[in-house]
Amino acid sequence: MAGTDRNKDNASASAAPVIVLVEPQLGENIGTAARAMMNCGLGELRLVRPRDGWPNPKAVAAASGADDVIQNARLFDSTPAAIADLHRVYGTTARHRGMIKPVVTPRQAALEMRAAGARSERVGVLFGPERTGLVNDDIPLADTVIQVPLNPAYSSLNLAQAVLIIGYEWFQAAVDVPARELVTNETRPATKAELLNFFAHLEKELDDCGFLRHADKRPVMVRNIRNLFQRADLTEQEIRTLHGIIKELAHERVRNRRRP
Amino acid sequence: MAGTDRNKDNASASAAPVIVLVEPQLGENIGTAARAMMNCGLGELRLVRPRDGWPNPKAVAAASGADDVIQNARLFDSTPAAIADLHRVYGTTARHRGMIKPVVTPRQAALEMRAAGARSERVGVLFGPERTGLVNDDIPLADTVIQVPLNPAYSSLNLAQAVLIIGYEWFQAAVDVPARELVTNETRPATKAELLNFFAHLEKELDDCGFLRHADKRPVMVRNIRNLFQRADLTEQEIRTLHGIIKELAHERVRNRRRP
Repeated sequence: MAGTDRNKDNASASAAPVIVLVEPQLGENIGTAARAMMNCGLGELRLVRPRDGWPNPKAVAAASGADDVIQNARLFDSTPAAIADLHRVYGTTARHRGMIKPVVTPRQAALEMRAAGARSERVGVLFGPERTGLVNDDIPLADTVIQVPLNPAYSSLNLAQAVLIIGYEWFQAAVDVPARELVTNETRPATKAELLNFFAHLEKELDDCGFLRHADKRPVMVRNIRNLFQRADLTEQEIRTLHGIIKELAHERVRNRRRP
Repeated sequence: MAGTDRNKDNASASAAPVIVLVEPQLGENIGTAARAMMNCGLGELRLVRPRDGWPNPKAVAAASGADDVIQNARLFDSTPAAIADLHRVYGTTARHRGMIKPVVTPRQAALEMRAAGARSERVGVLFGPERTGLVNDDIPLADTVIQVPLNPAYSSLNLAQAVLIIGYEWFQAAVDVPARELVTNETRPATKAELLNFFAHLEKELDDCGFLRHADKRPVMVRNIRNLFQRADLTEQEIRTLHGIIKELAHERVRNRRRP
Protein backbone atom coordinates (compact mmCIF):
# COMPACT_ATOMS: atom_id res chain seq x y z
CA MET A 1 0.00 0.00 0.00
CA ALA A 2 1.30 3.43 -0.61
CA GLY A 3 0.79 7.10 -0.75
CA THR A 4 0.33 9.84 -3.24
CA ASP A 5 2.04 13.12 -2.71
CA ARG A 6 -0.87 15.44 -3.30
CA ASN A 7 -1.17 16.31 0.38
CA LYS A 8 2.45 16.97 1.09
CA ASP A 9 2.26 20.73 1.18
CA ASN A 10 -1.03 20.88 3.02
CA ALA A 11 0.13 18.34 5.56
CA SER A 12 3.00 20.49 6.68
CA ALA A 13 1.01 23.70 6.53
CA SER A 14 -0.68 23.33 9.89
CA ALA A 15 0.98 22.07 13.04
CA ALA A 16 0.63 18.31 13.53
CA PRO A 17 -0.88 16.96 16.74
CA VAL A 18 1.41 15.65 19.44
CA ILE A 19 0.91 11.95 20.25
CA VAL A 20 0.98 11.26 24.00
CA LEU A 21 1.25 7.61 25.06
CA VAL A 22 0.29 7.29 28.72
CA GLU A 23 2.02 4.38 30.49
CA PRO A 24 2.60 2.30 27.35
CA GLN A 25 3.46 -1.26 28.32
CA LEU A 26 5.39 -2.87 25.45
CA GLY A 27 8.38 -1.30 23.72
CA GLU A 28 7.29 -2.96 20.47
CA ASN A 29 4.03 -1.05 20.58
CA ILE A 30 5.82 2.26 21.09
CA GLY A 31 7.89 1.42 18.02
CA THR A 32 4.96 0.45 15.81
CA ALA A 33 3.04 3.52 17.02
CA ALA A 34 6.05 5.62 15.93
CA ARG A 35 5.85 4.00 12.48
CA ALA A 36 2.16 4.78 12.21
CA MET A 37 2.96 8.39 13.17
CA MET A 38 5.62 8.55 10.47
CA ASN A 39 3.14 7.16 7.91
CA CYS A 40 0.92 10.12 8.68
CA GLY A 41 3.53 12.83 8.94
CA LEU A 42 3.31 13.14 12.73
CA GLY A 43 6.69 13.78 14.33
CA GLU A 44 6.21 14.58 18.01
CA LEU A 45 5.90 11.71 20.47
CA ARG A 46 5.59 12.11 24.25
CA LEU A 47 5.74 9.25 26.73
CA VAL A 48 4.30 9.28 30.23
CA ARG A 49 5.94 6.70 32.53
CA PRO A 50 6.54 3.93 29.96
CA ARG A 51 6.39 0.66 31.92
CA ASP A 52 9.78 -0.68 30.84
CA GLY A 53 11.70 2.58 31.12
CA TRP A 54 13.23 4.73 28.43
CA PRO A 55 15.10 4.48 26.12
CA ASN A 56 13.82 1.03 25.19
CA PRO A 57 15.77 -1.07 22.64
CA LYS A 58 12.61 -2.96 21.62
CA ALA A 59 10.94 0.31 20.69
CA VAL A 60 13.93 1.23 18.55
CA ALA A 61 13.89 -2.16 16.81
CA ALA A 62 10.16 -2.00 16.08
CA ALA A 63 10.34 1.58 14.82
CA SER A 64 12.47 0.71 11.80
CA GLY A 65 12.38 3.71 9.48
CA ALA A 66 10.75 5.94 12.08
CA ASP A 67 13.91 6.29 14.15
CA ASP A 68 13.66 10.07 14.32
CA VAL A 69 10.29 9.87 16.05
CA ILE A 70 11.77 7.55 18.71
CA GLN A 71 15.00 9.53 19.10
CA ASN A 72 13.09 12.76 19.63
CA ALA A 73 10.45 11.29 21.95
CA ARG A 74 10.16 13.20 25.24
CA LEU A 75 9.65 11.56 28.61
CA PHE A 76 7.26 12.89 31.30
CA ASP A 77 6.42 11.71 34.78
CA SER A 78 2.76 12.72 34.68
CA THR A 79 0.03 13.33 32.13
CA PRO A 80 -0.52 16.94 33.30
CA ALA A 81 3.19 17.64 32.74
CA ALA A 82 3.03 16.06 29.27
CA ILE A 83 0.18 18.31 28.13
CA ALA A 84 1.05 21.53 29.99
CA ASP A 85 1.96 23.53 26.88
CA LEU A 86 -0.94 22.29 24.73
CA HIS A 87 -4.12 24.26 24.06
CA ARG A 88 -6.42 21.41 23.14
CA VAL A 89 -6.29 17.76 24.15
CA TYR A 90 -8.21 14.75 22.83
CA GLY A 91 -8.51 11.47 24.70
CA THR A 92 -9.03 8.17 22.91
CA THR A 93 -11.20 5.80 24.87
CA ALA A 94 -13.48 2.84 24.45
CA ARG A 95 -15.90 3.75 27.20
CA HIS A 96 -17.56 6.92 28.34
CA ARG A 97 -17.07 5.88 31.97
CA GLY A 98 -19.88 8.14 33.07
CA MET A 99 -18.09 11.35 32.16
CA ILE A 100 -19.85 14.30 30.57
CA LYS A 101 -17.63 15.06 27.64
CA PRO A 102 -18.06 15.85 23.95
CA VAL A 103 -17.45 12.76 21.82
CA VAL A 104 -16.26 13.04 18.23
CA THR A 105 -15.21 10.67 15.49
CA PRO A 106 -11.60 10.68 14.26
CA ARG A 107 -12.80 12.52 11.16
CA GLN A 108 -14.45 15.30 13.11
CA ALA A 109 -11.45 15.50 15.42
CA ALA A 110 -9.14 15.83 12.41
CA LEU A 111 -11.05 18.84 11.11
CA GLU A 112 -10.95 20.46 14.53
CA MET A 113 -7.22 19.75 14.84
CA ARG A 114 -6.55 21.31 11.44
CA ALA A 115 -8.55 24.39 12.40
CA ALA A 116 -6.68 24.64 15.71
CA GLY A 117 -3.36 24.25 13.91
CA ALA A 118 -4.32 27.05 11.55
CA ARG A 119 -4.79 29.28 14.61
CA SER A 120 -1.31 28.24 15.83
CA GLU A 121 -2.79 26.33 18.74
CA ARG A 122 -1.01 23.19 19.85
CA VAL A 123 -3.05 20.00 19.94
CA GLY A 124 -2.36 16.61 21.52
CA VAL A 125 -4.00 13.19 21.54
CA LEU A 126 -3.82 10.91 24.59
CA PHE A 127 -3.65 7.11 24.26
CA GLY A 128 -3.86 4.95 27.39
CA PRO A 129 -2.02 1.76 28.33
CA GLU A 130 -2.63 -1.24 26.04
CA ARG A 131 -4.47 -3.28 28.62
CA THR A 132 -6.81 -0.74 30.18
CA GLY A 133 -6.93 2.34 27.99
CA LEU A 134 -6.98 5.77 29.60
CA VAL A 135 -7.71 5.76 33.31
CA ASN A 136 -10.41 7.80 34.97
CA ASP A 137 -8.03 10.49 36.19
CA ASP A 138 -6.61 11.14 32.74
CA ILE A 139 -9.87 11.41 30.81
CA PRO A 140 -10.89 14.68 32.54
CA LEU A 141 -7.65 16.21 31.23
CA ALA A 142 -9.00 15.86 27.70
CA ASP A 143 -11.31 18.49 26.23
CA THR A 144 -12.94 15.95 23.96
CA VAL A 145 -13.11 12.19 23.61
CA ILE A 146 -12.45 10.46 20.29
CA GLN A 147 -14.28 7.23 19.59
CA VAL A 148 -13.71 5.28 16.40
CA PRO A 149 -16.93 4.04 14.83
CA LEU A 150 -16.22 0.34 14.36
CA ASN A 151 -18.01 -2.98 14.61
CA PRO A 152 -19.60 -2.72 18.07
CA ALA A 153 -19.10 -6.45 18.58
CA TYR A 154 -15.34 -6.12 18.01
CA SER A 155 -14.15 -2.59 18.36
CA SER A 156 -10.79 -2.84 20.09
CA LEU A 157 -7.72 -1.72 18.16
CA ASN A 158 -4.11 -2.18 19.15
CA LEU A 159 -2.08 0.91 20.01
CA ALA A 160 -0.41 1.35 16.61
CA GLN A 161 -3.71 0.89 14.78
CA ALA A 162 -5.41 3.46 16.97
CA VAL A 163 -2.60 5.93 16.32
CA LEU A 164 -2.79 5.11 12.60
CA ILE A 165 -6.51 5.85 12.36
CA ILE A 166 -6.16 9.20 14.14
CA GLY A 167 -3.08 10.12 12.09
CA TYR A 168 -4.64 8.92 8.85
CA GLU A 169 -7.68 11.13 9.35
CA TRP A 170 -5.48 14.08 10.26
CA PHE A 171 -3.51 13.55 7.05
CA GLN A 172 -6.67 13.27 4.93
CA ALA A 173 -8.04 16.47 6.47
CA ALA A 174 -5.27 18.50 4.84
CA VAL A 175 -7.95 19.90 2.60
CA ASP A 176 -8.86 23.20 4.16
CA VAL A 177 -12.15 22.80 5.98
CA PRO A 178 -12.59 24.81 9.14
CA ALA A 179 -14.43 23.12 11.97
CA ARG A 180 -16.00 24.71 15.02
CA GLU A 181 -14.11 27.82 15.69
CA LEU A 182 -14.04 29.83 18.87
CA VAL A 183 -13.72 33.56 18.40
CA THR A 184 -11.36 34.68 21.12
CA ASN A 185 -10.90 38.32 20.15
CA GLU A 186 -8.12 39.96 22.13
CA THR A 187 -7.35 36.99 24.30
CA ARG A 188 -6.17 33.45 23.57
CA PRO A 189 -7.11 29.91 24.59
CA ALA A 190 -5.77 28.96 28.01
CA THR A 191 -2.89 26.50 28.11
CA LYS A 192 -3.45 23.29 30.02
CA ALA A 193 -1.01 24.50 32.67
CA GLU A 194 -3.25 27.53 33.26
CA LEU A 195 -6.34 25.35 33.40
CA LEU A 196 -4.75 22.87 35.82
CA ASN A 197 -3.61 25.74 38.00
CA PHE A 198 -7.20 26.98 38.15
CA PHE A 199 -8.40 23.48 39.07
CA ALA A 200 -5.84 23.38 41.90
CA HIS A 201 -7.08 26.73 43.21
CA LEU A 202 -10.76 25.78 42.95
CA GLU A 203 -10.28 22.38 44.57
CA LYS A 204 -8.26 23.82 47.44
CA GLU A 205 -11.05 26.29 48.19
CA LEU A 206 -13.67 23.55 47.88
CA ASP A 207 -11.69 21.43 50.33
CA ASP A 208 -11.36 24.36 52.72
CA CYS A 209 -15.03 25.21 52.66
CA GLY A 210 -16.10 21.62 53.08
CA PHE A 211 -17.77 21.10 49.70
CA LEU A 212 -15.53 18.09 49.09
CA ARG A 213 -15.75 16.78 52.64
CA HIS A 214 -16.97 13.27 51.73
CA ALA A 215 -13.75 11.43 50.97
CA ASP A 216 -15.48 8.62 49.11
CA LYS A 217 -17.28 10.99 46.75
CA ARG A 218 -14.40 13.43 46.34
CA PRO A 219 -12.71 11.80 43.29
CA VAL A 220 -15.88 11.62 41.20
CA MET A 221 -16.95 15.12 42.23
CA VAL A 222 -13.54 16.50 41.25
CA ARG A 223 -13.73 14.73 37.90
CA ASN A 224 -17.22 16.05 37.22
CA ILE A 225 -16.23 19.61 38.10
CA ARG A 226 -13.12 19.41 35.94
CA ASN A 227 -15.12 18.04 33.05
CA LEU A 228 -17.64 20.85 33.05
CA PHE A 229 -15.01 23.60 33.07
CA GLN A 230 -12.91 21.71 30.52
CA ARG A 231 -15.80 21.82 28.08
CA ALA A 232 -16.01 25.59 28.14
CA ASP A 233 -12.82 26.03 26.04
CA LEU A 234 -11.73 28.70 28.48
CA THR A 235 -9.54 31.59 27.44
CA GLU A 236 -6.61 32.89 29.45
CA GLN A 237 -8.69 35.94 30.35
CA GLU A 238 -11.58 33.80 31.55
CA ILE A 239 -9.26 31.72 33.70
CA ARG A 240 -8.22 34.94 35.42
CA THR A 241 -11.87 35.91 35.90
CA LEU A 242 -12.60 32.53 37.47
CA HIS A 243 -9.62 32.83 39.83
CA GLY A 244 -11.04 36.17 40.88
CA ILE A 245 -14.53 34.76 41.41
CA ILE A 246 -13.28 31.89 43.57
CA LYS A 247 -11.02 34.15 45.58
CA GLU A 248 -13.60 36.81 46.25
CA LEU A 249 -16.45 34.41 46.93
CA ALA A 250 -14.36 32.61 49.51
CA HIS A 251 -12.49 35.48 51.11
CA GLU A 252 -14.04 38.88 50.48
CA ARG A 253 -17.28 37.81 52.01
CA VAL A 254 -15.51 36.70 55.17
CA ARG A 255 -13.77 40.06 55.37
CA ASN A 256 -17.01 41.99 54.81
CA ARG A 257 -18.89 40.08 57.46
CA ARG A 258 -16.19 40.71 59.97
CA ARG A 259 -16.63 44.43 59.67
CA PRO A 260 -18.97 45.80 62.23
CA MET B 1 -10.13 2.64 21.33
CA ALA B 2 -13.58 1.56 20.51
CA GLY B 3 -16.76 1.90 18.67
CA THR B 4 -20.20 3.23 19.05
CA ASP B 5 -23.12 1.13 18.07
CA ARG B 6 -25.06 3.62 16.06
CA ASN B 7 -23.65 2.15 12.83
CA LYS B 8 -24.72 -1.39 13.32
CA ASP B 9 -27.69 -1.34 11.03
CA ASN B 10 -26.06 0.71 8.32
CA ALA B 11 -22.97 -1.47 8.32
CA SER B 12 -24.91 -4.56 7.49
CA ALA B 13 -27.29 -2.85 5.09
CA SER B 14 -25.07 -3.13 2.03
CA ALA B 15 -22.94 -6.14 1.18
CA ALA B 16 -19.43 -5.93 2.60
CA PRO B 17 -16.45 -6.23 0.25
CA VAL B 18 -14.57 -9.53 0.11
CA ILE B 19 -10.92 -9.31 1.19
CA VAL B 20 -8.59 -11.28 -1.10
CA LEU B 21 -5.02 -11.87 0.15
CA VAL B 22 -2.83 -12.94 -2.76
CA GLU B 23 0.11 -15.15 -1.71
CA PRO B 24 0.30 -13.89 1.87
CA GLN B 25 3.61 -14.91 3.44
CA LEU B 26 3.18 -14.95 7.23
CA GLY B 27 0.36 -16.69 9.05
CA GLU B 28 0.50 -13.96 11.71
CA ASN B 29 -0.34 -11.37 9.09
CA ILE B 30 -3.34 -13.35 7.88
CA GLY B 31 -4.53 -13.47 11.49
CA THR B 32 -4.08 -9.77 12.16
CA ALA B 33 -5.71 -8.94 8.83
CA ALA B 34 -8.69 -11.06 9.93
CA ARG B 35 -8.89 -9.01 13.13
CA ALA B 36 -8.84 -5.76 11.17
CA MET B 37 -11.65 -7.15 9.00
CA MET B 38 -13.66 -8.02 12.10
CA ASN B 39 -13.12 -4.48 13.47
CA CYS B 40 -14.78 -3.15 10.35
CA GLY B 41 -17.59 -5.67 10.00
CA LEU B 42 -16.01 -7.49 7.05
CA GLY B 43 -16.56 -11.25 7.22
CA GLU B 44 -15.42 -12.80 3.97
CA LEU B 45 -11.74 -13.66 3.52
CA ARG B 46 -10.26 -15.40 0.47
CA LEU B 47 -6.67 -16.64 0.25
CA VAL B 48 -4.73 -17.25 -2.96
CA ARG B 49 -1.81 -19.70 -2.51
CA PRO B 50 -0.78 -18.70 1.04
CA ARG B 51 2.97 -19.41 1.26
CA ASP B 52 2.83 -21.62 4.37
CA GLY B 53 -0.26 -23.61 3.38
CA TRP B 54 -3.71 -23.63 4.88
CA PRO B 55 -4.98 -24.02 7.55
CA ASN B 56 -2.19 -22.23 9.39
CA PRO B 57 -2.05 -22.42 13.22
CA LYS B 58 -0.19 -19.10 13.42
CA ALA B 59 -3.03 -17.40 11.59
CA VAL B 60 -5.50 -18.88 14.07
CA ALA B 61 -3.40 -17.74 17.03
CA ALA B 62 -3.04 -14.20 15.71
CA ALA B 63 -6.73 -13.91 14.84
CA SER B 64 -7.90 -14.09 18.46
CA GLY B 65 -11.53 -13.00 18.53
CA ALA B 66 -11.84 -13.10 14.75
CA ASP B 67 -11.87 -16.88 14.60
CA ASP B 68 -14.97 -16.98 12.42
CA VAL B 69 -13.23 -15.01 9.69
CA ILE B 70 -10.34 -17.51 9.69
CA GLN B 71 -12.58 -20.59 9.92
CA ASN B 72 -14.68 -19.42 6.98
CA ALA B 73 -11.74 -18.31 4.80
CA ARG B 74 -11.77 -19.90 1.36
CA LEU B 75 -8.68 -21.12 -0.43
CA PHE B 76 -8.00 -20.55 -4.17
CA ASP B 77 -5.17 -21.54 -6.45
CA SER B 78 -5.27 -18.44 -8.60
CA THR B 79 -6.35 -14.83 -8.39
CA PRO B 80 -8.78 -15.17 -11.31
CA ALA B 81 -10.47 -18.08 -9.52
CA ALA B 82 -10.68 -16.07 -6.31
CA ILE B 83 -12.49 -13.18 -7.95
CA ALA B 84 -14.61 -15.07 -10.46
CA ASP B 85 -17.97 -14.35 -8.82
CA LEU B 86 -17.26 -10.67 -8.07
CA HIS B 87 -18.64 -7.74 -10.03
CA ARG B 88 -16.05 -5.17 -9.14
CA VAL B 89 -12.45 -5.57 -7.97
CA TYR B 90 -10.04 -3.08 -6.44
CA GLY B 91 -6.30 -3.60 -6.23
CA THR B 92 -4.19 -2.01 -3.51
CA THR B 93 -0.73 -1.05 -4.67
CA ALA B 94 2.11 1.31 -3.96
CA ARG B 95 3.06 1.96 -7.54
CA HIS B 96 1.21 2.50 -10.79
CA ARG B 97 3.76 0.32 -12.58
CA GLY B 98 2.99 2.04 -15.82
CA MET B 99 -0.54 0.73 -16.00
CA ILE B 100 -3.40 2.83 -17.23
CA LYS B 101 -5.91 2.39 -14.50
CA PRO B 102 -8.24 4.59 -12.48
CA VAL B 103 -6.70 5.41 -9.10
CA VAL B 104 -8.87 6.29 -6.12
CA THR B 105 -8.38 6.98 -2.44
CA PRO B 106 -9.79 4.56 0.15
CA ARG B 107 -12.53 7.10 0.83
CA GLN B 108 -13.60 7.30 -2.79
CA ALA B 109 -13.40 3.53 -3.09
CA ALA B 110 -15.62 3.15 -0.01
CA LEU B 111 -18.36 5.27 -1.56
CA GLU B 112 -18.18 3.27 -4.77
CA MET B 113 -18.29 -0.01 -2.84
CA ARG B 114 -21.35 1.13 -0.90
CA ALA B 115 -23.07 2.12 -4.14
CA ALA B 116 -22.18 -1.21 -5.73
CA GLY B 117 -23.44 -3.05 -2.65
CA ALA B 118 -26.71 -1.16 -2.87
CA ARG B 119 -27.06 -2.49 -6.43
CA SER B 120 -26.43 -6.01 -5.08
CA GLU B 121 -23.10 -6.18 -6.86
CA ARG B 122 -20.33 -8.10 -5.15
CA VAL B 123 -17.08 -6.24 -4.57
CA GLY B 124 -13.58 -7.45 -3.65
CA VAL B 125 -10.26 -5.88 -2.71
CA LEU B 126 -6.92 -7.50 -3.62
CA PHE B 127 -3.87 -7.24 -1.35
CA GLY B 128 -0.50 -8.55 -2.57
CA PRO B 129 2.27 -10.42 -0.73
CA GLU B 130 3.91 -8.53 2.16
CA ARG B 131 7.28 -8.17 0.48
CA THR B 132 6.35 -7.12 -3.04
CA GLY B 133 2.72 -6.06 -3.12
CA LEU B 134 0.53 -7.10 -6.04
CA VAL B 135 2.45 -8.42 -9.00
CA ASN B 136 2.09 -7.17 -12.53
CA ASP B 137 -0.14 -10.04 -13.59
CA ASP B 138 -2.66 -9.41 -10.85
CA ILE B 139 -3.05 -5.65 -11.17
CA PRO B 140 -4.82 -5.91 -14.53
CA LEU B 141 -7.45 -8.06 -12.84
CA ALA B 142 -8.50 -5.03 -10.81
CA ASP B 143 -10.94 -2.50 -12.23
CA THR B 144 -9.45 0.26 -10.12
CA VAL B 145 -6.35 0.83 -8.01
CA ILE B 146 -6.60 2.13 -4.45
CA GLN B 147 -3.76 4.25 -3.14
CA VAL B 148 -3.71 5.53 0.42
CA PRO B 149 -2.67 9.19 0.73
CA LEU B 150 0.13 9.06 3.31
CA ASN B 151 3.50 10.66 4.00
CA PRO B 152 5.25 10.18 0.63
CA ALA B 153 8.56 9.70 2.45
CA TYR B 154 7.15 6.79 4.46
CA SER B 155 4.03 5.38 2.93
CA SER B 156 4.31 1.64 3.41
CA LEU B 157 1.75 -0.05 5.65
CA ASN B 158 1.78 -3.61 6.87
CA LEU B 159 -0.90 -5.97 5.61
CA ALA B 160 -3.26 -5.66 8.59
CA GLN B 161 -2.96 -1.87 8.58
CA ALA B 162 -3.76 -1.71 4.89
CA VAL B 163 -6.81 -3.91 5.41
CA LEU B 164 -7.80 -1.76 8.40
CA ILE B 165 -7.70 1.49 6.42
CA ILE B 166 -9.81 0.06 3.59
CA GLY B 167 -12.26 -1.53 6.01
CA TYR B 168 -12.38 1.56 8.20
CA GLU B 169 -13.34 3.75 5.25
CA TRP B 170 -15.96 1.24 4.14
CA PHE B 171 -17.42 1.25 7.64
CA GLN B 172 -17.38 5.06 7.87
CA ALA B 173 -19.15 5.36 4.52
CA ALA B 174 -22.25 3.99 6.22
CA VAL B 175 -22.14 6.57 8.94
CA ASP B 176 -24.54 9.37 8.76
CA VAL B 177 -22.05 11.76 10.30
CA PRO B 178 -23.78 13.43 13.21
CA ALA B 179 -22.70 16.72 14.67
CA ARG B 180 -20.67 16.68 17.84
CA GLU B 181 -22.47 14.59 20.34
CA LEU B 182 -22.43 15.17 24.07
CA VAL B 183 -22.85 11.99 26.05
CA THR B 184 -24.87 12.87 29.10
CA ASN B 185 -25.49 9.41 30.56
CA GLU B 186 -28.05 9.54 33.35
CA THR B 187 -28.60 13.25 33.26
CA ARG B 188 -29.91 15.66 30.60
CA PRO B 189 -28.95 19.03 29.17
CA ALA B 190 -30.00 21.90 31.40
CA THR B 191 -32.95 23.97 30.32
CA LYS B 192 -32.32 27.65 29.72
CA ALA B 193 -34.46 28.38 32.78
CA GLU B 194 -32.11 26.31 34.91
CA LEU B 195 -29.11 28.03 33.40
CA LEU B 196 -30.55 31.51 33.99
CA ASN B 197 -31.46 30.58 37.53
CA PHE B 198 -27.84 29.58 38.10
CA PHE B 199 -26.67 32.90 36.61
CA ALA B 200 -28.98 34.76 39.00
CA HIS B 201 -27.58 32.87 41.97
CA LEU B 202 -23.97 33.37 40.91
CA GLU B 203 -24.41 37.06 40.15
CA LYS B 204 -26.15 37.74 43.44
CA GLU B 205 -23.25 36.17 45.33
CA LEU B 206 -20.73 38.07 43.22
CA ASP B 207 -22.56 41.30 44.02
CA ASP B 208 -22.60 40.46 47.71
CA CYS B 209 -18.92 39.64 47.93
CA GLY B 210 -17.91 42.72 45.98
CA PHE B 211 -16.55 41.03 42.85
CA LEU B 212 -18.93 43.10 40.69
CA ARG B 213 -18.49 46.29 42.69
CA HIS B 214 -17.42 48.47 39.74
CA ALA B 215 -20.74 49.54 38.27
CA ASP B 216 -19.24 50.62 34.92
CA LYS B 217 -17.58 47.26 34.36
CA ARG B 218 -20.41 45.14 35.75
CA PRO B 219 -22.38 44.61 32.52
CA VAL B 220 -19.41 43.38 30.50
CA MET B 221 -18.15 41.20 33.34
CA VAL B 222 -21.57 39.58 33.69
CA ARG B 223 -21.72 38.93 29.95
CA ASN B 224 -18.25 37.38 29.94
CA ILE B 225 -19.06 35.12 32.87
CA ARG B 226 -22.35 34.04 31.31
CA ASN B 227 -20.61 33.31 28.02
CA LEU B 228 -18.04 31.03 29.51
CA PHE B 229 -20.61 28.92 31.37
CA GLN B 230 -22.93 28.95 28.38
CA ARG B 231 -20.27 27.36 26.24
CA ALA B 232 -19.95 24.37 28.56
CA ASP B 233 -23.29 22.87 27.45
CA LEU B 234 -24.09 22.23 31.10
CA THR B 235 -26.30 19.40 32.23
CA GLU B 236 -29.01 19.66 34.84
CA GLN B 237 -26.80 17.71 37.25
CA GLU B 238 -23.87 20.04 36.68
CA ILE B 239 -26.04 23.09 37.31
CA ARG B 240 -26.86 21.61 40.71
CA THR B 241 -23.17 21.00 41.38
CA LEU B 242 -22.40 24.62 40.51
CA HIS B 243 -25.17 25.90 42.80
CA GLY B 244 -23.58 23.82 45.55
CA ILE B 245 -20.11 25.19 44.85
CA ILE B 246 -21.25 28.81 44.92
CA LYS B 247 -23.29 28.31 48.05
CA GLU B 248 -20.61 26.53 50.00
CA LEU B 249 -17.77 28.77 48.88
CA ALA B 250 -19.70 31.82 49.97
CA HIS B 251 -21.39 30.58 53.11
CA GLU B 252 -19.74 27.52 54.61
CA ARG B 253 -16.45 29.27 54.94
CA VAL B 254 -18.08 32.15 56.73
CA ARG B 255 -19.79 29.73 59.07
CA ASN B 256 -16.53 27.85 59.73
CA ARG B 257 -14.67 31.02 60.53
CA ARG B 258 -17.32 32.10 62.92
CA ARG B 259 -16.85 29.02 65.01
CA PRO B 260 -14.41 29.53 67.82
